[in-house]
Amino acid sequence: MIPGGVRVLNAGLPLIVEGVPADDVVQLDWRPPAFGDAEVARLAVGLDDSATREANERAIAAVHAVRPRLVRVRPARDVVPGLGAGRILLHAAPPIAVADMCGPMIGALLGAILSEGWAAGPEEAEALLRSGGIVTEPGHHHGMVGPMAGVVAPSMPVLVVEDGGREAYATLNEGLGRVLRFGAYDEEVLTRLAWMRDVLGPVLDAAIVAGGPIDVTSLVAQALAMGDEGHNRNVAATSLLTRRLAPHLAALPRGIEVLEFLAGNDHFALNLSMAAAKLAMDAAAGTPGSTLVTAMARNGVEFGLRVAGTGDRWFTAPVGPAEGLFFPGFGVEDANPDLGDSAITETLGIGGFAMAAAPAITRFVGGTPDDALATTRRMRRITMAAHPAYSLPPLNFAGSPSGIDVLKVLQTGVLPVINTGIAHREAGVGQIGAGVVDAPSAVFLLAARGLAEARGAR
Amino acid sequence: MIPGGVRVLNAGLPLIVEGVPADDVVQLDWRPPAFGDAEVARLAVGLDDSATREANERAIAAVHAVRPRLVRVRPARDVVPGLGAGRILLHAAPPIAVADMCGPMIGALLGAILSEGWAAGPEEAEALLRSGGIVTEPGHHHGMVGPMAGVVAPSMPVLVVEDGGREAYATLNEGLGRVLRFGAYDEEVLTRLAWMRDVLGPVLDAAIVAGGPIDVTSLVAQALAMGDEGHNRNVAATSLLTRRLAPHLAALPRGIEVLEFLAGNDHFALNLSMAAAKLAMDAAAGTPGSTLVTAMARNGVEFGLRVAGTGDRWFTAPVGPAEGLFFPGFGVEDANPDLGDSAITETLGIGGFAMAAAPAITRFVGGTPDDALATTRRMRRITMAAHPAYSLPPLNFAGSPSGIDVLKVLQTGVLPVINTGIAHREAGVGQIGAGVVDAPSAVFLLAARGLAEARGAR
Repeated sequence: MIPGGVRVLNAGLPLIVEGVPADDVVQLDWRPPAFGDAEVARLAVGLDDSATREANERAIAAVHAVRPRLVRVRPARDVVPGLGAGRILLHAAPPIAVADMCGPMIGALLGAILSEGWAAGPEEAEALLRSGGIVTEPGHHHGMVGPMAGVVAPSMPVLVVEDGGREAYATLNEGLGRVLRFGAYDEEVLTRLAWMRDVLGPVLDAAIVAGGPIDVTSLVAQALAMGDEGHNRNVAATSLLTRRLAPHLAALPRGIEVLEFLAGNDHFALNLSMAAAKLAMDAAAGTPGSTLVTAMARNGVEFGLRVAGTGDRWFTAPVGPAEGLFFPGFGVEDANPDLGDSAITETLGIGGFAMAAAPAITRFVGGTPDDALATTRRMRRITMAAHPAYSLPPLNFAGSPSGIDVLKVLQTGVLPVINTGIAHREAGVGQIGAGVVDAPSAVFLLAARGLAEARGAR
Repeated sequence: MIPGGVRVLNAGLPLIVEGVPADDVVQLDWRPPAFGDAEVARLAVGLDDSATREANERAIAAVHAVRPRLVRVRPARDVVPGLGAGRILLHAAPPIAVADMCGPMIGALLGAILSEGWAAGPEEAEALLRSGGIVTEPGHHHGMVGPMAGVVAPSMPVLVVEDGGREAYATLNEGLGRVLRFGAYDEEVLTRLAWMRDVLGPVLDAAIVAGGPIDVTSLVAQALAMGDEGHNRNVAATSLLTRRLAPHLAALPRGIEVLEFLAGNDHFALNLSMAAAKLAMDAAAGTPGSTLVTAMARNGVEFGLRVAGTGDRWFTAPVGPAEGLFFPGFGVEDANPDLGDSAITETLGIGGFAMAAAPAITRFVGGTPDDALATTRRMRRITMAAHPAYSLPPLNFAGSPSGIDVLKVLQTGVLPVINTGIAHREAGVGQIGAGVVDAPSAVFLLAARGLAEARGAR
């Protein structure tokens, strides 16, 4: 007899056991492998061998060995590879043609064109963009990540995180309200961007240089013990960072303006945790044979997945809007499909994967604190290891589930969860809510095929 | 039959049911009322009527209506009643004769005498103190609270919190290491005290005046959602407060020094939550017939309890050292009995009562995150209400258990839990650990007798 007096285990639909007393049944959460795709299921079984396991051990060890340090804040053109000359703008990955872009991304690109002075007004900017006068590429192709539209122009200041000679970059967070990353490009947005370029960037850079590099792993670890999950809740990391930089900022001309900005922006540290996650994940990119996910990103039309064993290749599928809580006056019909590079945090194992650390976030994205614990536990089923630095106090200090394994996703049918902001589908309206979204299953099916091809080619 | 198949409920010692299969027994945590004191048990039954319940409803409503605002940082002599003239020093309550004081309190008083310039050296200071040349009184008698020795001299800057014309005060937190509140009084301590008097106090005051009053209830509520419990863990409140004050501090001469101090002191906000708790609890002091605890405080020799229905009267009993984790090289034999006014936080319903909010603190005071949840749940059994502003995300946002009822303590045998630092028993060594201590049962027995007397006198 099964312990607890259970007499029936049901792996099928609940209606099969409707006639059995409920106390005698345990309903299993079993799903057919590879989301029911028999061909991919066979490929996945073929990939699941000791060579893959060894490759994955190497890949996740490389990720966990990275200790990103915030070393500078510099104009993108001076530090981001490929941004030194020409009219180039970066956007949230995966790649997408201008004609196919969503409203918020177009709006953000227009704002960037205007802020660079490449056009005198929005119409001219749009004509320039649609006529091919601007090169647009994913930030991910340049070691760069940005939330939502993720647009970077050459003159914009970016966070520079470094470890062992490698660098990654992220935009500076503008705060909430009417902001470029949600596709707004009016005078208020352009004025703020100019201030960020002329004041925020240089003053932050001088404060960081004066105070010395900041260990981002340690900062995020502290913040996870203070109710942040490092994606949608960043008030602890922002406050810790501000408190540390404050004496250096206070010593600089216009440092007061920067301290005022930091006091009013609870999400400032998001972009820092993103840059650090990007640097960590890129350490595994191109590991032959590894089924580790190295990037998840959405461009507002498609969801893109990159896997260590297939290098730079993107596996893409259409993306929908997040489920969550909308600000008053807005609903799912207003929502743009999911957008941004910020899922790099979940790729590393924070954000939605660290929900257990952040029970208070359920008031922002929906659900209950118990759901938050269950979400982190569920993500353990599809990840390779507990993150050695990111311990979660509510789960008795267990490490956050880190490193998504394509094969485990296919075996369990459990999809990675992503915390996200929700943008209005029209350029310029801004954020209308926040919530949670699952990565689409289709990209994992494509990734399995890609991994099998890569193995065949070796 | 009892649900779950249990056949035996045992309210006695476990050995009574040793012969019964374990699965058939539920062991109840029943204790005789009033800790086995039959006379007090009878008094408590007599007190437990509608008049007491109505008095308690009024008392806890008055406590929860208080919204303390940090309005100034001023020299104690300018704001604390009774400190304007003469050689008077305040210490952690309850009252105690100099001859009976513990090492850390004597050390702190010597440091205060030296910092006031009332003696040229430690020997002269001690002679002055022991000859009665200094008036020593509990801070609690002056609307004042301080952690550990809780010593305040007239020239020391104090936090001023205000609501509806009433004020309460607390010392400024010196940080860890060799500090006055743990009884250290060497040159390093005196130099820091002079800096706090000449720089920290006046500069903080100017920044608060410039920025406007700070809503302490809101600050503590935010911090409880960020892993603080408001007594032994204060990094969130300190970081939020610093981030808010930083732009104003940066604009002031010597503001950089203050920002450096705040960046290095994770406990700065403790004293602010103490002052706010004191202001809240004093709103209920003297409520006729109420069995609400309005103060718990330790002077390193005795534990003191005050109850709303008995006004200013202290009920005291000997106090022992806390159980917890010791710093390397120290053990319980080095520990001073528990010390300080900081249990005013537990009196309001944060600190040990809000352990559920702060799973990470278990690494500092001992126990596990599950213990932390259990502690908060246990404190519900002896408190009057959930605090309306202090919600605890890990317990599905339930309010922290607030307002200890003497009668509930006697009925359940559950003692209030207090988070605490552990001081070395010799003056000047400083903190050697942190842990948790139960209030002694004896003070609740005395309080019941006092409440019965007060009722008889009405």
